[in-house]
Amino acid sequence: MDIIKRITLLLAVIAMLTGVVALTGPTSGQTAGEAAPIFVTEIPAGYREWRFISVAHEEGNLNSFASVLGNDIAVRAYREGKLPFPDGAIIAALHYRFVPSAENNKAFGRDQSFVAGAPTNVQFMVKDSKKYAATGGWGFGHFNSDGKPVDDSFMKTCFPCHQKVKERDLVFTRYAP
Amino acid sequence: MDIIKRITLLLAVIAMLTGVVALTGPTSGQTAGEAAPIFVTEIPAGYREWRFISVAHEEGNLNSFASVLGNDIAVRAYREGKLPFPDGAIIAALHYRFVPSAENNKAFGRDQSFVAGAPTNVQFMVKDSKKYAATGGWGFGHFNSDGKPVDDSFMKTCFPCHQKVKERDLVFTRYAP
Repeated sequence: MDIIKRITLLLAVIAMLTGVVALTGPTSGQTAGEAAPIFVTEIPAGYREWRFISVAHEEGNLNSFASVLGNDIAVRAYREGKLPFPDGAIIAALHYRFVPSAENNKAFGRDQSFVAGAPTNVQFMVKDSKKYAATGGWGFGHFNSDGKPVDDSFMKTCFPCHQKVKERDLVFTRYAP
Repeated sequence: MDIIKRITLLLAVIAMLTGVVALTGPTSGQTAGEAAPIFVTEIPAGYREWRFISVAHEEGNLNSFASVLGNDIAVRAYREGKLPFPDGAIIAALHYRFVPSAENNKAFGRDQSFVAGAPTNVQFMVKDSKKYAATGGWGFGHFNSDGKPVDDSFMKTCFPCHQKVKERDLVFTRYAP
């Protein structure tokens, strides 16, 4: 991968996780005969009721909190250590701003507490090995806090990054016991 | 509150949230005629299946991630903005070490990612206005990762700290949308 592609990918990941979709640069092109990736264009119903998988925090430009939730199929697969995830599994990453909590700090008597601020975006990975065959069996989705999906040029950056954890079926998040 | 009590309380809070229960200092004494506080001595069943309320991070000695979950009664009250919480509401705070993720950092190409490490403890607030009348209607519980509750002298520090958010029925955590 040349340096321009590397930078483009990094910017795309940052934009994706911050909910700032300002990417207009080149993305890896579609070559002849390659299946077109398909993205998740509707927010899966009821995801806010799903079970807890784990939490994460990104520093720097992202400055985000993530809470990762899963539907029954995803959570069962996680608990059973089942890979690849079966069709029907859906993983949701709810992103919020990472903000200091003045009231918690006051209770602690020191500045040390951070809580979830405004929601920024929700991302989904939907497993359907036929529909999303071009992207490892996973459909990727990203919806900003206004509920709108982001454009395809942006979405094309998901799969290349998630391929870095191919041995875990493209899923970065590990289950927190 | 004098300085010794302040320091004792601060140490107790730190110990509570880190799961390190080393507190042996004085705690606020029981005066004649005051009802004895009662603590939660058994882990509420099924809490790992509950719905997501919010996340938090404490820096410094705590170095913790918290995922806060609620049973149906608690989550409904949160969503409806109902205060005080009704009897039967239970809130769980699952604590983990706050650790860097080498594999996420590798994917990002920079050191910025933190994930849930080893679980340290789970804390509960159980609403029962009669049983826990002496502590604002809430029973407090703290179970280290071995599943064992901590001793009463330690548990006596919960209520005084939570009283700092009396206007929110002693609950620090706000609901993340």
